[in-house]
Amino acid sequence: MNRREFAQSTAGAIAAVALAWPRWHHRQRPVVRVNGSRLNGHLRELSRFGATPDGGINRVAYSAADLAGREYVIGLMEAAQLATSVDAAGNILGRRPGSDAGLAPLMFGSHTDSVPAGGNYDGQVGSLAAIEVAQTLAEHGIVTRHPLEVVIFQNEEGGKTGSRAISGEVVEREFNLVTRSGHTIGEGIGIIGGDLSRFDTVRREPGSIAAYLELHIEQGGVLERENVDIGVVEGIVGIKRWTVVVDGIANHAGTTPMADRRDALLAAARFVDAVNEVVTSVPGKQVGTVGRLEVEPGAPNVVPGRVTLTLELRDLDMEKIDSIYEKITTAGHRIGERSGTTFSFDQFYVSRAAPTDERLRRLVAQSAAELGLSASRMPSGAGHDAQSIALLAPVGMIFIPSVGGISHSPKELSHPNDIANGANVLLHTLLEADILVLD
Amino acid sequence: MNRREFAQSTAGAIAAVALAWPRWHHRQRPVVRVNGSRLNGHLRELSRFGATPDGGINRVAYSAADLAGREYVIGLMEAAQLATSVDAAGNILGRRPGSDAGLAPLMFGSHTDSVPAGGNYDGQVGSLAAIEVAQTLAEHGIVTRHPLEVVIFQNEEGGKTGSRAISGEVVEREFNLVTRSGHTIGEGIGIIGGDLSRFDTVRREPGSIAAYLELHIEQGGVLERENVDIGVVEGIVGIKRWTVVVDGIANHAGTTPMADRRDALLAAARFVDAVNEVVTSVPGKQVGTVGRLEVEPGAPNVVPGRVTLTLELRDLDMEKIDSIYEKITTAGHRIGERSGTTFSFDQFYVSRAAPTDERLRRLVAQSAAELGLSASRMPSGAGHDAQSIALLAPVGMIFIPSVGGISHSPKELSHPNDIANGANVLLHTLLEADILVLD
Repeated sequence: MNRREFAQSTAGAIAAVALAWPRWHHRQRPVVRVNGSRLNGHLRELSRFGATPDGGINRVAYSAADLAGREYVIGLMEAAQLATSVDAAGNILGRRPGSDAGLAPLMFGSHTDSVPAGGNYDGQVGSLAAIEVAQTLAEHGIVTRHPLEVVIFQNEEGGKTGSRAISGEVVEREFNLVTRSGHTIGEGIGIIGGDLSRFDTVRREPGSIAAYLELHIEQGGVLERENVDIGVVEGIVGIKRWTVVVDGIANHAGTTPMADRRDALLAAARFVDAVNEVVTSVPGKQVGTVGRLEVEPGAPNVVPGRVTLTLELRDLDMEKIDSIYEKITTAGHRIGERSGTTFSFDQFYVSRAAPTDERLRRLVAQSAAELGLSASRMPSGAGHDAQSIALLAPVGMIFIPSVGGISHSPKELSHPNDIANGANVLLHTLLEADILVLD
Repeated sequence: MNRREFAQSTAGAIAAVALAWPRWHHRQRPVVRVNGSRLNGHLRELSRFGATPDGGINRVAYSAADLAGREYVIGLMEAAQLATSVDAAGNILGRRPGSDAGLAPLMFGSHTDSVPAGGNYDGQVGSLAAIEVAQTLAEHGIVTRHPLEVVIFQNEEGGKTGSRAISGEVVEREFNLVTRSGHTIGEGIGIIGGDLSRFDTVRREPGSIAAYLELHIEQGGVLERENVDIGVVEGIVGIKRWTVVVDGIANHAGTTPMADRRDALLAAARFVDAVNEVVTSVPGKQVGTVGRLEVEPGAPNVVPGRVTLTLELRDLDMEKIDSIYEKITTAGHRIGERSGTTFSFDQFYVSRAAPTDERLRRLVAQSAAELGLSASRMPSGAGHDAQSIALLAPVGMIFIPSVGGISHSPKELSHPNDIANGANVLLHTLLEADILVLD
C-alpha cells in the first residue's frame, strides 16, 4: 500500500492541530513504530568503531575509525533497501523513491563522526534513527509521496563540511585546514570517497529539498531536569564572539598603593560580573559566556597590566544578541572609566541563527502528543547540520534527553527508551510532513 | 679629628627631637656633605658593566658583568680608604676602624647585581652612596666611635643570598638552585671569590652589628607624586601568598541555561572584586593583589569549570594580614555558596615583616630636616637586604624618589639631585647613630 492507503487504513482519531496549514489532510493515527531494540543494537555495534577504553569513541572525520564506521552505516542503509551513494563532498546518501517523482525529496539524517574524546550518541542517534525509519517504512511497505533521502553528513564536528557543501558555504581555503585526523579536509574528502574536483556539484538550490528533519540528543540538561520526553527545537541559536582586551598598567604589587593602581584584572572581573548581570536581566533563553581569560604578566607579585578575554552571546534572535552586546559594551566602558582602564572589543566569529520551520515544529509537537510523549519547545544552543540546510529548505529538529546534560564526553548518555521515542517522533513527523505541501 | 671633636667643631643649632633617646648628645649641626657629582659619575661608570642597548643593564649575580661590576666597586672602596675583603659567602666588605675598638660595627650598603632586564639605580644607588659616604669621611678625617663596615651584598635579586648568609637563613638546598647566570648559587659563590666550605662562618650573632643603614630607590611612585624628597622607611612589609582554587562545573556554553551554570570564572570574578573591597575597606597602607588567574578549560564556548588564582597580601603588621585574609576567605565562601562553586585556599609563601628601628627612623627624619629636605614615613612594599639584617640588628632605611614609580626596568630613573640628597641623609644618619648607644 502507498502512503495514502496506509493513512486511510489505520485506526484512531487525531487531535485537531490544523491552524494555518496550507492543505491539511484529515486522517487517522498511524500505528507504525520503529524497532527500538534493533536501533539500540545498531548503536552499540557502531560504538565499536573508534572505541576508547573509557567507553567513549574517537572517530574524528577521515580517520580509519571514521571510514570503518561509514562502511558499517552503508551496510545498514542497504539492508534498509536504500539506494546508497557517496556524493562528491563525501556525504553518504540513501534514497527511497516516492510515489510522486516530481516532488523534491524529504531529507533526514545526521552525522557519525565524533570529537576526539567523544561519546556514542551525538550524531549517531540521529543517523541510525534515520536508517531505522527507512527500514521501518520498507518493512511496512509504506511509500511516501516525496522521495526520501537519508543523509549522513561528513565532518560535522570539524566544521559541518558535508552539510555546508550542500548549502554552498564551504570556501576553498578550508580544504587546506588540517583536521584532528592529521589529514587536511581536502585530503579527507578523497579518503572517504568524495571527489574534490566535482565538489561544487554537491551544492543544492533553495527549494530543491522539500524539508529536512534531524533527530539529535539535547546535549544540555533541560529535558532531563524537567522530565520532558521530546524537545521541539525552535531553531539553532545564532552566535557572536568577541575578543575583549582590558588595558591597565602593570606595576609592582608591593610598591603600588591600592589607590594608584590601574589593575586590568580587577576591571575585567567587574566586567565578567556585568556580562552575567546584563544577560540575565533580560527575559528569554539567551546565554552569555566569558570562557577564556588570560592575564599579563600573570605573576603573584605584579598588578595585572592587561587582560584578554572572550565574550560569547547566543540567541535565536540576532537582533537581541546585538542589543545585549550594546548594553555590555556600555557597562565595559563605564567600568573602564571608573578604574583607569580601557576596554576594546573585536568581533571574531559570527554564526547566524537558524530558526526551524513553524509548520514542522507543530508536526513534531503533534507527533509527540500522538505517541503519548511530553514535549516542550526549546532552542538548540549547539550547532547542527540542520543549520546549513536551513539556508535551502524548511528544517525541523527533534531533541531527546541527555543524561546529566553531558556531551562531547565518553560519559555522554541517552536512555534506549528515549532513543526509540525520538525515532518514532522522527518517523511520524516525516509521514505528516509528507502529506503537507511543503514544496 | 675624631667624631666628637668634629661634632663639637661644627656650627649651627639643632632642632630638639629628643623624646625617648637612651642617651642624647646635644650637639651642633655638621656641615659635611658628600660629593654628589662624584657619586653620580660613579653610577654612570658602573652602568657600563652589563649595559643593554635600551639603556638598562643585565648584571645578574655570578655573570661576567656582575664580576666586572664588583671589581669596579672594590676599586672605589680602596680609593675610599676602606680595607676590602670578600667573605666566604661572596659579600664585599670595606672596613674603616672606629675610635672605640670594643664597639660593634655600624654596617651600611646595598647590592650591585640586577634583574635580567634591570635599570641603573636599584641597589646601585645605595651601594655607591655608601662608598661615597666612606670617602667623604676619609676626606674630612672624620673618625667615628664605631667601626664602619660598608657591605655590597651578593645576589640580592636572586634571593638575598648574601644578606641571608649573614643572618643564617640560607639552607643548603639553595646552593643547587640554577640562577639566571646559568650557574647554581653554589657555583656562583666560588666564582665571585667566596668559599662554600666556610659558608657558615659568615653568619653573625644578634648584637654583633650596632646598626644597619640602607639607602634605596623607592621603586614606587609615592614620593614623586607627593613631591617629597626622602622616605623614612617604617619597615619592609610582610607578605603572604595563597593559591585559591575555585571549582565549578565545566559545561557547554550553548546548551547550559544561565540559571543552571556553576561558572567558576564568574565566582572568581566576584572574588577578585571582593579582595579589592576588603583590602580597601580597612584604614592603612596594606595592599592585596590577584596577579595570576588561570581558567580551565579556557575555550570561548565552554562555561569555565575551574579557576586557579593567586592572592597576595602585604602589610607591616602580620596580624593585620591575617585578619584581612580571614575577611577575604569569608567573602570567598559566601560567593561560593551563592554560585554553586567551592573555594579552597592554600598558603604557599610567607615573608615576615621587618620593621625598622624607631630610633633610626627618627634619625633619618631628623637628618633630612637638618638638610632642608622634606620627608614622610612609608612602608617598603619591596624586599631588601635590610630585611635579613633586621634579624640581628636595628635597621634603618632611606628612600629617594623613583621617577614614575618604575623599577626593574631599563626605564628606572632617580634624579642626580635626589641621589645626592639620599647620600647626605645616609651620611648624617650614620653620624647621628654613631653618637647613640645602639649596642
